[in-house]
Amino acid sequence: MSSTATTLKGQPLDKAVLDAMLRRRMFYTPSFEIYGGVGGLYDFGPPGCGLLANITDLWRKHFVLEEDMLEVDCTVLTPHEVLKTSGHVDKFADWMCKDPKNGEIMRADHFVEAVLEARLKGDKEARGQKVVEDTEDPAKKKKKKAKSEAVKLDDAVVQEYEEVLARIDNYGGSELGELIRKYDLRNPETGEIPSEPVSFNLMFQTSIGPSSNLAGYLRPETAQGQFLNFAKLLEFNQSSMPFASASIGKSYRNEISPRAGLLRVREFLMAEIEHFVDPLGGKKHSRFSEVEDVELVLLDRDTQLSGKTETRTVKIGEAVRSGLVDNETLGYFLARIHLFMVKIGVDTSKMRFRQHMANEMAHYACDCWDCELHTSSGWIECVGCADRSAYDLSVHAKKTGAPLVVRQRLDEPIVIEEWEVDVEKKKFGPLFKKDAKAVEAALLATSQEQREKLAKELTGNGKVVVSVEGVADGKAEVPAEAVKIEFRKRTEYTREFTPNVIEPSFGIGRTLYALIEHNFWTRGTEGGDEARGVLSFPPTVAPTKVLIVPLSSNAQFKPHLKKLSQRLRKLGVSSRVDDSSASIGKRYSRNDELGTPLGVTVDFQTLQDNTLTLRDRDSTSQVRAEEDTIVEAIRAIVDGSKTWADIEKELPKFEGQEVEVAAR
Amino acid sequence: MSSTATTLKGQPLDKAVLDAMLRRRMFYTPSFEIYGGVGGLYDFGPPGCGLLANITDLWRKHFVLEEDMLEVDCTVLTPHEVLKTSGHVDKFADWMCKDPKNGEIMRADHFVEAVLEARLKGDKEARGQKVVEDTEDPAKKKKKKAKSEAVKLDDAVVQEYEEVLARIDNYGGSELGELIRKYDLRNPETGEIPSEPVSFNLMFQTSIGPSSNLAGYLRPETAQGQFLNFAKLLEFNQSSMPFASASIGKSYRNEISPRAGLLRVREFLMAEIEHFVDPLGGKKHSRFSEVEDVELVLLDRDTQLSGKTETRTVKIGEAVRSGLVDNETLGYFLARIHLFMVKIGVDTSKMRFRQHMANEMAHYACDCWDCELHTSSGWIECVGCADRSAYDLSVHAKKTGAPLVVRQRLDEPIVIEEWEVDVEKKKFGPLFKKDAKAVEAALLATSQEQREKLAKELTGNGKVVVSVEGVADGKAEVPAEAVKIEFRKRTEYTREFTPNVIEPSFGIGRTLYALIEHNFWTRGTEGGDEARGVLSFPPTVAPTKVLIVPLSSNAQFKPHLKKLSQRLRKLGVSSRVDDSSASIGKRYSRNDELGTPLGVTVDFQTLQDNTLTLRDRDSTSQVRAEEDTIVEAIRAIVDGSKTWADIEKELPKFEGQEVEVAAR
Repeated sequence: MSSTATTLKGQPLDKAVLDAMLRRRMFYTPSFEIYGGVGGLYDFGPPGCGLLANITDLWRKHFVLEEDMLEVDCTVLTPHEVLKTSGHVDKFADWMCKDPKNGEIMRADHFVEAVLEARLKGDKEARGQKVVEDTEDPAKKKKKKAKSEAVKLDDAVVQEYEEVLARIDNYGGSELGELIRKYDLRNPETGEIPSEPVSFNLMFQTSIGPSSNLAGYLRPETAQGQFLNFAKLLEFNQSSMPFASASIGKSYRNEISPRAGLLRVREFLMAEIEHFVDPLGGKKHSRFSEVEDVELVLLDRDTQLSGKTETRTVKIGEAVRSGLVDNETLGYFLARIHLFMVKIGVDTSKMRFRQHMANEMAHYACDCWDCELHTSSGWIECVGCADRSAYDLSVHAKKTGAPLVVRQRLDEPIVIEEWEVDVEKKKFGPLFKKDAKAVEAALLATSQEQREKLAKELTGNGKVVVSVEGVADGKAEVPAEAVKIEFRKRTEYTREFTPNVIEPSFGIGRTLYALIEHNFWTRGTEGGDEARGVLSFPPTVAPTKVLIVPLSSNAQFKPHLKKLSQRLRKLGVSSRVDDSSASIGKRYSRNDELGTPLGVTVDFQTLQDNTLTLRDRDSTSQVRAEEDTIVEAIRAIVDGSKTWADIEKELPKFEGQEVEVAAR
Repeated sequence: MSSTATTLKGQPLDKAVLDAMLRRRMFYTPSFEIYGGVGGLYDFGPPGCGLLANITDLWRKHFVLEEDMLEVDCTVLTPHEVLKTSGHVDKFADWMCKDPKNGEIMRADHFVEAVLEARLKGDKEARGQKVVEDTEDPAKKKKKKAKSEAVKLDDAVVQEYEEVLARIDNYGGSELGELIRKYDLRNPETGEIPSEPVSFNLMFQTSIGPSSNLAGYLRPETAQGQFLNFAKLLEFNQSSMPFASASIGKSYRNEISPRAGLLRVREFLMAEIEHFVDPLGGKKHSRFSEVEDVELVLLDRDTQLSGKTETRTVKIGEAVRSGLVDNETLGYFLARIHLFMVKIGVDTSKMRFRQHMANEMAHYACDCWDCELHTSSGWIECVGCADRSAYDLSVHAKKTGAPLVVRQRLDEPIVIEEWEVDVEKKKFGPLFKKDAKAVEAALLATSQEQREKLAKELTGNGKVVVSVEGVADGKAEVPAEAVKIEFRKRTEYTREFTPNVIEPSFGIGRTLYALIEHNFWTRGTEGGDEARGVLSFPPTVAPTKVLIVPLSSNAQFKPHLKKLSQRLRKLGVSSRVDDSSASIGKRYSRNDELGTPLGVTVDFQTLQDNTLTLRDRDSTSQVRAEEDTIVEAIRAIVDGSKTWADIEKELPKFEGQEVEVAAR
């Protein structure tokens, strides 16, 4: 894999050319541009909107309908308490610092990274070493660029900088501040040392209702709404496990300094699945056998720890058997994500699954893999697929008292023998006053081993001493009349458990952008014109399937155009008529840029014998046949049952109009 | 039209029964319920989400694809300046007042209305008159209920109250405050007079970016994003007029006290069209002839002015010809809205189009009609269809200087003769100092008649006197050397104009709720069981099309179930298997409540001869045939090419299982 982005045809990707084309064709555009724009906000124009709709439609079919997932649509507005419990209020933040001179606000980690990297680059230049632009590392795609100067550093300093960079994701605010002071890191634009990093929560805050006392946020992910509805969804699913919920909707992150176009925005479309599974029994998946031979390109944790980025291609069945991927359910979804990406037209040579490092994962996650797509901004995380364990359901249940659990009748009752602690609450109050609850909790939190020891102590001394955090001297003496600790046998007929959650989480905007780059290429023209852009989307994903062009704006063609559009519309095939005065070649060029896979020309011959030409976007070759045959060919290509190669074999080639393209 | 809501079968609608069913089947549910819920926020569960997706999908086909509209997806986050210009910052507000005792916050107009109505009701009771619960008036659906006491009022007072109520939408905050004091209106819950009304802006506020200095709001409608992109959309449309943009997305209103379930919420899905049309030439529509015979139920302005609510059924062609509906384009969309409502299954006997009163409309609107659907909360505005004139494009163009206009080459150049004003800017500065701009603007704003007069004055007196607001004594003397006013002839080859906008704006959540009520009915059971609910959605709208039930949970049925689901999925028909242990009757009942139109039973006979029974939700009658035949029947019903009556004629009736339903 080269670190330089290429087009679909292997040409070096000229991002400026692509950007100009996407803008010209209104795939997306900065929001509020006539008001000067707002960073990180983009509107999708008609073709971008069509792409979005087709990708989400395929997503719904591939995941939700294929597996009977329970789709929900929860609100974006979320009260403070929910996101406090989930941990977002405290932890969903970045460290930011400010340039004292020009007031620029920067992400502290990106700042440290950029300046140190610039120094290392300068060192290499001074040493006469070749400097490779490294876009391989996904962490660096967000960074602010700092210019390098050719200054040689001590070997020890180089090593120190490299160690800092390797650990950059692990520093807190004060550590980043220390690094800035220690290495005298200055903003290259002003020469100033930025301010001490302060925490900046990335959630947009608002208040709900007229009295302004209910603080709320715009959700940073769709997941919480699904967790909160767990009990209702389980009931809707007639208490049957496992099952998955799914949600497609917007989420919000108030990025400190959004830069990379659609790759880092403040408002974005997500599609998330929460697959709830019994934690016992190894998290098997009943349909795993259907995907076990799917080959994935994996970049595992150990490889990354050794500082390398070499991937290997492994069948998911093998990856789960060897323990590389934690369990079948996680593996199943990795394979399904791969198949989805193939379906929408992602270039598989630019796709990999990267395992999270231990320090990258949330503390509760067991295993997490990102599906990354390679673009001109390097490797981009487009889908995260994490095993979140029972964390979310547990914290919400603990906070609210809602039973976010599954109760299963056991086929055979089980007999449990264990040490049990009975607390005499009436005696606890008088004995421990305000500490009663804490002492009780400490007793109940003891392990089986501890209880066995305590039971002996109780029998021997008539009292036990337990360590209790926050109480006077950290110890509490509990007399025998206030507690019983006994080894008992009991029979259980039901089992209660909190499901674990496997969460595939898609960033639709990022995926859309990567898909555009993967399907972009340019076609040279004979006349030495500027290279013409083409977006070779698969027909299912293309915003419009068919361009209908009359040879000229002659009124005679109108009834034919109308009839043909209506026929296609009935088949559910989106088409667009272009009866502008531009040449046919120009009209086709415009639609190559829009990614329209097929073109139909209505000409004077059509008026005589009702034949039409059908043009393939990618090869520009054309066939000609009677209208019914052409419509059937369109249907077959759009629904995927035939390819253009099939159609070319079946129908007579037509060599007429493309001449005009070259001649334009 | 009765003012009491009825079911699809004309039964009195028991809202409590319906609500319980919608909750049980998770059509929608209060958001964050385990945290106590937040007023005006609802989540859609799987069937509600399916309904939403199907309604918006049909909307996209009916409007966007049918008319080649340009769909866009703009951000919800909107900076202050945009909504300041559009008028929302200043005017998108309600008056609220607070009870000094219990702190309750109320909408002032709703409060006045509720208390006066309770007094009028009490008066009627005291006079021994029959009290009719009036749910006809759409304005009253939002109100807080106040209990009435049987107290007789003076005739003059009754008349005064009635006059106040008729004008309730026209009062400002201080007037509402006066009414409260004048009539000693007290909160029935506390006996207190509420505080003076204060304005409460209904937009959710937030700040964008880390420095907190860019104030923003969550958009209250999707329209502004479409207006701001007008120039790009026009270019995308190859400068061809007329055209429409469209957008489906969430909008937000921070309601003071949301009450009526899905009918008044704080976060909701909208689908809006902005049809841009040349204001000259009577706003004709090229496809008007296709709809002119569509009959609409209209409640016009004059009828309402006379205090009546009688509707009349008129062909839209006739309504436009007679001037009742302002123009063809507006009429075209009213008819298209009607056809859409019919398509999704709205009961046309519970639909009307109500024209806005002059004082209800925004000051810039020419004409506006609401499509109202009748529900248990009275008549509900589900779609607004307004002619917004050139207002929005004009204000944004004025504020930003962006050319939100259409330039058309004229077929024949036109010669214009008129009075023109030339200002000598160099002389204005020294003459008027800080008032220079204001004086210039006043001169340029003069009419042709005024200019003719001023020209004479200039020639006669060597100076003109103009009225300028905000300048010293309101007048400015401009000498002849600083201004020229001449009658000149010029030739124009292009015409520049700001398009007018016709805006159909759909509240999808409200429409969805009304659709549920219109399709709900109950089926009695022979055994005297509780009445069983049915939702008779048309197949296109139904969340799931087919329920597949095995006779029992016998493992032999599994392969058949899987094969059948896969076949249906390939046809794009959503199905759901219910292999729970409940009786077939119970499983069908559950799906009647979910609105699933068809049911297929797999039984032991199936294993022998591959025949299946197909059940119709509405009649509960069944047919039996070979799998291929049944699948083809399902396809035909779902795509609308056949009805159940057709299928019943073609296939042999089956009388087996429904027995089990009665016997359950």
